[in-house]
Amino acid sequence: MKAKVLIVMGSDSDLPVMEKTGKMLEDFKIPYHMTVSSAHRTPERTLKLVKNAEKNGVEVIIAGAGAAAHLAGVIASHTTLPVIGVPIDSSPLEGIDALYSTVQMPPGIPVATMAVGKAGAKNAAIFAAQILGLKDAGIAAMLKEHRKDMAREVEKKAKKVEKHGKERPV
Amino acid sequence: MKAKVLIVMGSDSDLPVMEKTGKMLEDFKIPYHMTVSSAHRTPERTLKLVKNAEKNGVEVIIAGAGAAAHLAGVIASHTTLPVIGVPIDSSPLEGIDALYSTVQMPPGIPVATMAVGKAGAKNAAIFAAQILGLKDAGIAAMLKEHRKDMAREVEKKAKKVEKHGKERPV
Amino acid sequence: MKAKVLIVMGSDSDLPVMEKTGKMLEDFKIPYHMTVSSAHRTPERTLKLVKNAEKNGVEVIIAGAGAAAHLAGVIASHTTLPVIGVPIDSSPLEGIDALYSTVQMPPGIPVATMAVGKAGAKNAAIFAAQILGLKDAGIAAMLKEHRKDMAREVEKKAKKVEKHGKERPV
Amino acid sequence: MKAKVLIVMGSDSDLPVMEKTGKMLEDFKIPYHMTVSSAHRTPERTLKLVKNAEKNGVEVIIAGAGAAAHLAGVIASHTTLPVIGVPIDSSPLEGIDALYSTVQMPPGIPVATMAVGKAGAKNAAIFAAQILGLKDAGIAAMLKEHRKDMAREVEKKAKKVEKHGKERPV
Amino acid sequence: MKAKVLIVMGSDSDLPVMEKTGKMLEDFKIPYHMTVSSAHRTPERTLKLVKNAEKNGVEVIIAGAGAAAHLAGVIASHTTLPVIGVPIDSSPLEGIDALYSTVQMPPGIPVATMAVGKAGAKNAAIFAAQILGLKDAGIAAMLKEHRKDMAREVEKKAKKVEKHGKERPV
Amino acid sequence: MKAKVLIVMGSDSDLPVMEKTGKMLEDFKIPYHMTVSSAHRTPERTLKLVKNAEKNGVEVIIAGAGAAAHLAGVIASHTTLPVIGVPIDSSPLEGIDALYSTVQMPPGIPVATMAVGKAGAKNAAIFAAQILGLKDAGIAAMLKEHRKDMAREVEKKAKKVEKHGKERPV
Amino acid sequence: MKAKVLIVMGSDSDLPVMEKTGKMLEDFKIPYHMTVSSAHRTPERTLKLVKNAEKNGVEVIIAGAGAAAHLAGVIASHTTLPVIGVPIDSSPLEGIDALYSTVQMPPGIPVATMAVGKAGAKNAAIFAAQILGLKDAGIAAMLKEHRKDMAREVEKKAKKVEKHGKERPV
Amino acid sequence: MKAKVLIVMGSDSDLPVMEKTGKMLEDFKIPYHMTVSSAHRTPERTLKLVKNAEKNGVEVIIAGAGAAAHLAGVIASHTTLPVIGVPIDSSPLEGIDALYSTVQMPPGIPVATMAVGKAGAKNAAIFAAQILGLKDAGIAAMLKEHRKDMAREVEKKAKKVEKHGKERPV
Repeated sequence: MKAKVLIVMGSDSDLPVMEKTGKMLEDFKIPYHMTVSSAHRTPERTLKLVKNAEKNGVEVIIAGAGAAAHLAGVIASHTTLPVIGVPIDSSPLEGIDALYSTVQMPPGIPVATMAVGKAGAKNAAIFAAQILGLKDAGIAAMLKEHRKDMAREVEKKAKKVEKHGKERPV
Repeated sequence: MKAKVLIVMGSDSDLPVMEKTGKMLEDFKIPYHMTVSSAHRTPERTLKLVKNAEKNGVEVIIAGAGAAAHLAGVIASHTTLPVIGVPIDSSPLEGIDALYSTVQMPPGIPVATMAVGKAGAKNAAIFAAQILGLKDAGIAAMLKEHRKDMAREVEKKAKKVEKHGKERPV
Repeated sequence: MKAKVLIVMGSDSDLPVMEKTGKMLEDFKIPYHMTVSSAHRTPERTLKLVKNAEKNGVEVIIAGAGAAAHLAGVIASHTTLPVIGVPIDSSPLEGIDALYSTVQMPPGIPVATMAVGKAGAKNAAIFAAQILGLKDAGIAAMLKEHRKDMAREVEKKAKKVEKHGKERPV
Repeated sequence: MKAKVLIVMGSDSDLPVMEKTGKMLEDFKIPYHMTVSSAHRTPERTLKLVKNAEKNGVEVIIAGAGAAAHLAGVIASHTTLPVIGVPIDSSPLEGIDALYSTVQMPPGIPVATMAVGKAGAKNAAIFAAQILGLKDAGIAAMLKEHRKDMAREVEKKAKKVEKHGKERPV
Repeated sequence: MKAKVLIVMGSDSDLPVMEKTGKMLEDFKIPYHMTVSSAHRTPERTLKLVKNAEKNGVEVIIAGAGAAAHLAGVIASHTTLPVIGVPIDSSPLEGIDALYSTVQMPPGIPVATMAVGKAGAKNAAIFAAQILGLKDAGIAAMLKEHRKDMAREVEKKAKKVEKHGKERPV
Repeated sequence: MKAKVLIVMGSDSDLPVMEKTGKMLEDFKIPYHMTVSSAHRTPERTLKLVKNAEKNGVEVIIAGAGAAAHLAGVIASHTTLPVIGVPIDSSPLEGIDALYSTVQMPPGIPVATMAVGKAGAKNAAIFAAQILGLKDAGIAAMLKEHRKDMAREVEKKAKKVEKHGKERPV
Repeated sequence: MKAKVLIVMGSDSDLPVMEKTGKMLEDFKIPYHMTVSSAHRTPERTLKLVKNAEKNGVEVIIAGAGAAAHLAGVIASHTTLPVIGVPIDSSPLEGIDALYSTVQMPPGIPVATMAVGKAGAKNAAIFAAQILGLKDAGIAAMLKEHRKDMAREVEKKAKKVEKHGKERPV
Repeated sequence: MKAKVLIVMGSDSDLPVMEKTGKMLEDFKIPYHMTVSSAHRTPERTLKLVKNAEKNGVEVIIAGAGAAAHLAGVIASHTTLPVIGVPIDSSPLEGIDALYSTVQMPPGIPVATMAVGKAGAKNAAIFAAQILGLKDAGIAAMLKEHRKDMAREVEKKAKKVEKHGKERPV
């Protein structure tokens, strides 16, 4: 099955964050390809990945990087496919540098930026699914089901917390 | 022609920023509906707008707001359509509050966040076009043309700047 | 005894912070109900909680959440009861995102924001007691007693620190 | 008619911000007293104001200040009445200093903090009304009416913005 | 021997930081008194400490506190003795809140602010010695000696680091 | 009359801020010398100023600078006289850079840091007076009088603001 | 005469900042070429500029950009010539975004970052001259002369400020 | 072999960061001298180091420091050799203070600033090599080889990550 989503991270040390993206795409049964490429250390490789992705029918690209996180922006400069950026908190500035470097794109070249770190990595997959769900009713249905699952999960946790309160009655 | 994109802003004072979104969508000939609704002052209206948008075939929702900018997040909590957020610099904190309130969404409910202010408002339209371009070859073609236009524009400006340098020869 | 205060947290992972609120209310013998609801994952549940709270005589609502902490704001948009917000430091941005998302509410819908984390969770309970103390002389008296207890506590600590100094005489 | 709310500002230069609080209280027909006192330049005056306020039946105190904004905290240290703080953006740090100085109160002495600047000044009055509305049905009713007015206002603005869109049809 | 310096900290949890101040004063043989008092929890105690200090010949007051660190400012509002503030990183905002709350004093009431945390606590003692050294030639001489000691210490460390380099020759 | 205080600023563009220091010292009748020297552009001049100041009986040095404001720290590294730093908001970072560069001094070399900009410039003079007041009863008396003047000023402003309130009666 | 330095800016709106770089290079009689190219809108043009620069004997590249300022980093990824970055304050975040995006480069690909805005633009030229001065004694001599000029300039300004003080004698 | 690069750090506690600089220079076979000197505790030693470096043929100076990191700036004020600054995250402000203190140099005295911490320490060595490579073809060749090594390294890591994905097939 051909990948619909390309996940690129700037370094293999970003894997503990970016595997949340892969895991979530698997839940939605969306085929993806996940690899490493650096905007700065392998600019040609990055360009080639983008061109191949376009040729092979990839529809969304997700890029995760830390520090002066140029990866998503550099990818976006080489394609008109939607690019989603995940800022990673891997420098002493704790992700603020990656957030600003990813989100503050100049007019003309958007990067759809998610939250810093694992929350953003997971949401990148969901947002990709929301895009793909516009033409794939199966994905759209799974998204609605996922919402219900989350709501049920919250209710279960609510019960646990409510019980915690009850055990210390006024 | 039915709107493909819904633009919501939190206050009419956001119009000078958010009309960049409308203008750009017009350039791509993408029909849109633009209105005002507040996450906090009109929660019911916001919910109704989202539900109507879904019913009427809207495929992307763009929300612009300032300060504790909850609008995009609240909209995203009521739909599985892709939601794009534009943080607006309208409080004394100059858009940092709006940026954090828009981008730092918890796992499960993504908002695709753009740059703060007018750059982000324009890019929200381009990103919406990139999403819609996945199933509309006409839009995809216009996006590629827009890239070339921007490149030409840069080259024109380069000439101007280069001439400026030449007029002060070493 | 019917709850006078409703405590809502965005996730059960916020319990170690928000149980400070519950504990403090117990000290003031103020009955409360504590539960989990997410502004984004369970918007309907959140709305229902607010409406039930109003119906059942709750007088103050306390909401604790992290990251793009919309919970207090969303609750405030559905009620004219006083809403107290506790920003929680649960994202890589260490609570700044939660603080800005909670405090920077637009004109019309206030959220009474407390300090980030456990200090704020405890103070939320005290502030709720200060509100309720306006019509309940018993609570007002306990608040004054609590102040005296804190002063005594400081004096005890002062003694300990003063002794520490004396043990290293000049 | 005796004041129910005391408004204190750190300097008369804060008046353009804090008069929003007074104006809003007038809309809710809540009698108030508004004055200037500095936490640092007039500590005795500040203490006396608080003691007099308690004696004269004031139920809520609102304090607005900029820079190292200690005013609300100092007032809160002298009373168990609810104290609402409005951080004002009057230093080169643009209100971040006032926000942190107001909201980051230690455990034991809460200050209910509003947004920086005029939005916060207006909301301080609304929050005071929400507190007083718990024992005054007339204020509670006015608060609900105010919500409806705001919703109507948003709808009016929405119409204006929608028309603006229509005048530039796709 | 009567204390020349009064050290006040907002909580006994600040002792690991503030004992650096005491230790340094001991090195300069400057008698001091060290205690705990909270600007907010024990305002009267704080005021009394200041008044007693003035009466008993204290010449410099050093105040260390975290979060919305009002302690130094409140003390400064009650005396015209020089007051030195040490911001402590004890809240999730990591000392930025304490720094702004201590340094951003309004015109009229200065607080001499030191670095955040232990560096600042040590420097507070040195700065107090510099003030006292203006009338005490012994202290002035010790300050000059301390400078030389520090320079010697740096040179010793330099040797260690230089050797480290030499052990990995090019 | 020989200068007791040396005021140094990093650039003549800092004069509108630093003349507040001079003006305030004049009010306290403290003789001062005010000049320009750059930590970076004129390191030798800066060193010579410090050495001359020490020789000529200067007792306090006040340094104002913007951006990477090293001036106060460099001066402090060459003297054991008390050095007061005034961070100036003259770069696009609006004084945060100057504040951190001035206050975050390493252990051993304190700089007594004042608020950013004009408030800090005025307070630097008052703090110098507080230091000098320890051995000059005349200055100590003027400081107490200045406090009373400020209190009277606040009361005058309070009247103005109270009248403003009264003109809009409930 | 062939250019030794290439100045690239991301947009012609950066010219008022970056012409400071050109002007300063002219003072040092260093031939340069100045043009516009965007990391994102014209990635191919940017690559070509770098490759041509290398071929034509350029020795230092200076890149100025605002917002998510990737320009210097992208250029550095395509050459091993020294690249100097100038962050420009052209977005609502006032240059903090450009600073972090320029300076926080990952290990392997350095960008020599200057101050935000005009100060940085001027210093970029001086730093380029310092690099070129290592093999060009003429430039090295001019740099030393420039230092003396600056020192003289400071002394002139000092006289002006000192006179200002004298006109208001104690 | 005579040192071409001088590495200075403000304290021996900076060694775990700054030894990355030494290690990288060794990889490029560039002889260096590494030592400790404090801008504030040993200003004379710092000046002497700079003057000796100039005399002994050092061509680039690298300075690493934390907190109010004046070291690079103070060194730059005494030489026209290129100075590279490495901000170190050793205070509670986590390197932001060191970054601003290093990069925000005033016009006239540039410091080429690298990323905060170890990434910056490594890049300082590479940037020094890029400067020296302008007159030393051997270093220039090693830099190009280093780029290729980094690219190969990225490809190896990519394989590892790709395999990780394949082991969890869709």
